[in-house]
This record gives sequence, C-alpha cells and structure tokens, in this order.
Amino acid sequence: MASSILSDCSSCATSRLLPLRRALHPPPPRFRPSPAPAPLPRRPLLAAAASLPLLPRARRMAALAAASSADSATVLADASAKIIDGKLVAKQIREEVGVEIARMKDTIGVVPGLAVILVGSRKDSQTYVRNKKKACDAVGIKSYEVNLPEDASEYEVIKHIATFNDDPSVHGILVQLPLPRHMNDENILNAVSIEKDVDGFHPVNIGRLAMQGRDPFFVPCTPKGCMELLHRSGVEIKGKRAVVIGRSNIVGTPAALLLQKANATVSIVHSKTKNPEEITRQADIIIAAVGVANLVRGSWIKPGAAIIDVGINPVDDPASPRGYRLVGDVCFEEASKVAGAITPVPGGVGPMTIAMLLSNTLDSAKRIHKFK
Amino acid sequence: MASSILSDCSSCATSRLLPLRRALHPPPPRFRPSPAPAPLPRRPLLAAAASLPLLPRARRMAALAAASSADSATVLADASAKIIDGKLVAKQIREEVGVEIARMKDTIGVVPGLAVILVGSRKDSQTYVRNKKKACDAVGIKSYEVNLPEDASEYEVIKHIATFNDDPSVHGILVQLPLPRHMNDENILNAVSIEKDVDGFHPVNIGRLAMQGRDPFFVPCTPKGCMELLHRSGVEIKGKRAVVIGRSNIVGTPAALLLQKANATVSIVHSKTKNPEEITRQADIIIAAVGVANLVRGSWIKPGAAIIDVGINPVDDPASPRGYRLVGDVCFEEASKVAGAITPVPGGVGPMTIAMLLSNTLDSAKRIHKFK
Repeated sequence: MASSILSDCSSCATSRLLPLRRALHPPPPRFRPSPAPAPLPRRPLLAAAASLPLLPRARRMAALAAASSADSATVLADASAKIIDGKLVAKQIREEVGVEIARMKDTIGVVPGLAVILVGSRKDSQTYVRNKKKACDAVGIKSYEVNLPEDASEYEVIKHIATFNDDPSVHGILVQLPLPRHMNDENILNAVSIEKDVDGFHPVNIGRLAMQGRDPFFVPCTPKGCMELLHRSGVEIKGKRAVVIGRSNIVGTPAALLLQKANATVSIVHSKTKNPEEITRQADIIIAAVGVANLVRGSWIKPGAAIIDVGINPVDDPASPRGYRLVGDVCFEEASKVAGAITPVPGGVGPMTIAMLLSNTLDSAKRIHKFK
Repeated sequence: MASSILSDCSSCATSRLLPLRRALHPPPPRFRPSPAPAPLPRRPLLAAAASLPLLPRARRMAALAAASSADSATVLADASAKIIDGKLVAKQIREEVGVEIARMKDTIGVVPGLAVILVGSRKDSQTYVRNKKKACDAVGIKSYEVNLPEDASEYEVIKHIATFNDDPSVHGILVQLPLPRHMNDENILNAVSIEKDVDGFHPVNIGRLAMQGRDPFFVPCTPKGCMELLHRSGVEIKGKRAVVIGRSNIVGTPAALLLQKANATVSIVHSKTKNPEEITRQADIIIAAVGVANLVRGSWIKPGAAIIDVGINPVDDPASPRGYRLVGDVCFEEASKVAGAITPVPGGVGPMTIAMLLSNTLDSAKRIHKFK
C-alpha cells in the first residue's frame, strides 16, 4: 500500500480542498502544478548531501522506521533523505514544556493559562480546539474556553478578548480561525493584547519580526515549528540560500522573516513568480507552504537540500477508507530521493504547531511573571 | 574631469564614513568590496534591455543632460543605461503635493502640519532639518520644530511627542535620527502615534507592510522614493526578479517588502550572503542600500536590469575642493554600460526622500480630515 500511495505525484490535479486547508492557507493558491512528472535528477550519491549533517545511522534508521509507521508518509526503499520526524520532535518539546511548567508552579506557584475563543460550530475548528485543550491538559496549562454562536457579533468577541486581556491568570489568547464571514479578522486579532498574542499574528509582532535589532513577543506557531525542526535536525541556516514557497501571513511571510533573522539569504516564491523551480533549485533550505498538493517535484530540488513541507492537502483516494488521503506541497516520493532531509506529511510540521503554541504560552507566563 | 571622477571604482577601499552615512545606514556594513575591478560583460546591444521600457529619445536625452549637469554623477560617452533622474522626479512630486495642498486648503481650510524634533547640535542633522523646513515652506506645509539640547532626557523627548500626538494641527511627526547615545531609539519612535508616523518606522507600519491584505499607514520615505522612481520610469515590477542589497530597518527591509507587495520575486542579499554577485546577477531590479562605496560592479548586473542606488558614500578625493566626493553602492561607470536604467549618485534617490516625506504628510492630513 505504501508505495502505491506515494507513486502518484502526478495525481495532484485531483486534489480537492477540505476545510483543513482553509485554516492553513487562507488565500486561494494560484500555482499551477506541473502537468506531468518531471524527470528526476540522479542524486550524486551521499557526497552531495555532505553539507547537511546527518544523524547517526541508528537514530536515522529509527526515524525512518518511525516515519514508516505513519499513516501515509511511508519511506520508499530507495529514498536517501533523512526523515525529519515532527511527531518525535513535538513530543520532546511538549515534554520540555511540561518540565518547565512544573518548575514554575513549584517555584512561584503560577500555572500558565491559555484562553481559546471559538465562534460557530465548524467541525474542524471544534476538533482543533479539543486537541489544543488536550495538549494543554497534558503539560499542565490551564485552558479557558469561550464558545460563541455563528451569529455572534464582532463586539461580543472583542468583549471576551478584552476580559481575557485583563485576566492575570490568562497568559495566552487565541481566536480560532476562520471566523464567520460577517466578522473582520483584522479588528478581532488586533484586539488581542500583544503581550498575550501567542499566535503572533498581531502586526506589531510581525513588524518586530521583520526588523533588525527587534524581537517579537511571539513568533507564529507553524513557522516557529519549521525553524525548530531545522535547528533540532542540525541543519545549518546562517549563510545558506533559503526559498520559502508561499507568502501567507501565518506561515510563508513569517517563515521567510525568521530564516532571514537566522542569517539565511532568503527568496520568496509565490503565485506571480516566473520559473519557481529554477529559484527553488538554488536553495539549501526549502519551506513549502503554499497549499498545492505535490507542487514541488524532484527536479525543483538541489541535491542535499533540507525540505520542510507545511502543506496538508487532502487528495481523493478511493482506496482509502476515508475516501481521501493527505499529501504535502512536496512530492515526497521524488523529493526523498534528492533531498538531504525532509519532513513527511503527515507527521512532519503538523504536530509542531500545537507544541509551539504550548511553548509560546509558557514563554508568555514566564515573561509576565519574570520567571527565568 | 567627469570620466576621471568615475573611472576609479576600484578605489572603494579608500571610502571613509562621514556622518551622512550613519544617518542612512545605522548598522556598520560588513560587505567586502571586490579587491579589483572585475571584467565587464559586454552589453549585448540594446536588445537585451528590451524588457525595460525606455523613455522616448527626447526625454531620455533630456534626462541624460540633466544628469550630466549633476555634481559628480556624470554620464560617460559609452554609457547606454537610461539615467533615472531623481531630481526631476522629486521636483514633479513636490509640485503635485503643492497643488493638492492648495486644493485642500481652498476646499476645507486645512493646512497640513509637520513637526520635527531635533535633539543635540549635529551639523548634518541641523542641515537636514533646515532642508525639510524649506521643502515644507515651498509646498505649503506648516512646520513645527522643537530643538532640545544633547543632554535632554528621553522623557522630555517623549513629552514633546505626546503633545504633537494630541495637536490636531500636526499631521506628521518626525524625530531626527540619530539620537544621542543615552536615548533608546525604540522607546522614542514607538511613542509617535502610528497615525502621524510619517517616517513609517513604527513596528505596526512595518508589520502591515509585511502582511498580505494589510496596508501601512505610512511607507518609509526612502524605499517609497525607490518605488516611485521605478514606477515613474516605467519599470515593470510584477513577476520580475528583484534583489535588495542590505537589510536595514529604514531602507533595505521595507524596500524588499514593497517590491514583494508589488508582486516581484524578492531576494535580500546581506553581509552573510555567500556569492552575492551570483544572486544579484539574476535580478531584473536591484535596490542597493548597504552603504559600501562601489560594491556592485558591472559583472554583478544582468544586462538591461534597472538599478536604484541608495548609497551615498563619501570617498577621499584630493582633487575635489571638499577633499571628498560622493559615490553610490553601485559602480556607476561600469553599471551604466550594462544596466537598462540606473539612478545616479547624487541626484538619484537622495532628492526623493524629502519629496516622499512631504507626500506622506499630505496623505496623513487627507486621511485625518477624510479629504479625497
């Protein structure tokens, strides 16, 4: 089953949007995926990947094995890229956060609090909020939740935000997106105190992220997770060429700003870019966050590059019990033969987002209570 | 004299910093200029520049003539690039601003006001402030000025800012940089109301500039001037490759964000970039804002590219009555043979900064008074 799942990157034309996609990539993608599989460049043995530090063989095999057990991101026999195991890294981070929360509670008696505001009854949003709550419980963060009906007013949402802004037991506030159409996202997100904006979406946080010599209060969770995966996989960033595919406010743009702050030379590829494959092929690091199934083919990739695949795209799959399966923005089957390291989908960036949210909430509580 | 002035790009090693430079480029440059002139690629006639719309011959010659009369940015006989005449464009903008100010005064009786706060007695800062005041007078903007001694406290500066924030006759507030060392620039600049931040340096303005679907209240004047020069010279931006050299908060970073908002594919080259010339050579548009005399050689430039040179670097010149002369970040002599269009130094970006400040102040008054 595994290889058949992964042997059809050309089937991306069948991809369809599920609600999950809208949460990750608000602007509609306008990339045109390649109509047919491009010829794969031969990967010049392992020497080409020498610039990327590889994990010791035992850990690498364990990572490969872990990935093999994932739902669909199975590793092919001839894949040579290191698999960056997001589930494993996210688990480590959650454990580290749990230890720090226990230490803070023991030392100064403070328990970090995260408030989530959910408007409407979208099934996917309800699932996310439930998962966030479970993750909070597991590490010792106290959850606060407000559920408002679909027809709630902007004023009501902002009133709840204001209450949480003033509540000293709340250190992070998160408004679950997407909001109902009659609401202005900007007005609502701007109402969150920048000191509790654990999503990092406030323009002040983005501005501080873009500026030299300034630091944001919070870095948006998904791009922060991408950077953490690179760091913990030993991928060097300083002085490297990086390409970010996609320029959304919640992933692509902050990911590019983060790579630049880490002294990479960054190019952003987007829907108006001519020859995106030519630019992408120059990159030592690729972060793909555009929401187009299997857009990035093997021929787009410099041998040995590190690839972080943020896309979670459902594609029709009659063979699957659910009728669909999830694939990334990168054709994993082709890319894993060329890249030096790659995240699978699922099991790559996905688990990192909530881990980073927990980490941001802990950081907020530490900052507010001046706890080192 | 002209060609001797321009025939020594290799003399960049003799460049020295004058105060002017510090105002433009706060972080010290760490680029290493090429030790010797690189061989120049032959420019493949005019065909290579066909993608760049050229001005009609008469206007082009006028621009060339205007540039020829400039202090040191003289055009060589074999230069083929169109010279982008910043003096001329800035004059047009000032005239347009003047007409709009008169119309607003006649229609609703409002006169835009710009407040400038100057701390200390740096000669260069005093000159800038005087020039700003003169430019305001010429277009009908009312100037407000506060001069504080070098040893003034941060509190005093912020108190004056607060007064101007509340003053309805003031539509723009500008704190002249650099501030004395004992002051925290960030605290002071953040005190300016974002609705009067005509310099556009507030993190909220930078954040909104970085974000899709958001617009800043103000765009920083120098990068806005760069874009205006590109627009008014008919340089197409959408879909083009652009390289910004330098990533300062006041020029490089906002210039890159502006190019991206205009749908260019943007790469930022900085001090940690390996092979900056290789990346720069791919660009259809180059904005050089790094503060290193003659860094960008002819061999860095794609034939036909449009070049905006923000650098104003004084280099020793015993032949000059002042003992120095001003050159850009781009070796004009070499670049003008390869590029499709180029700004001279001086007479390129320089005059645009104050013109954009006037334009921002007018825009602010229009927005505050809802005047269309």
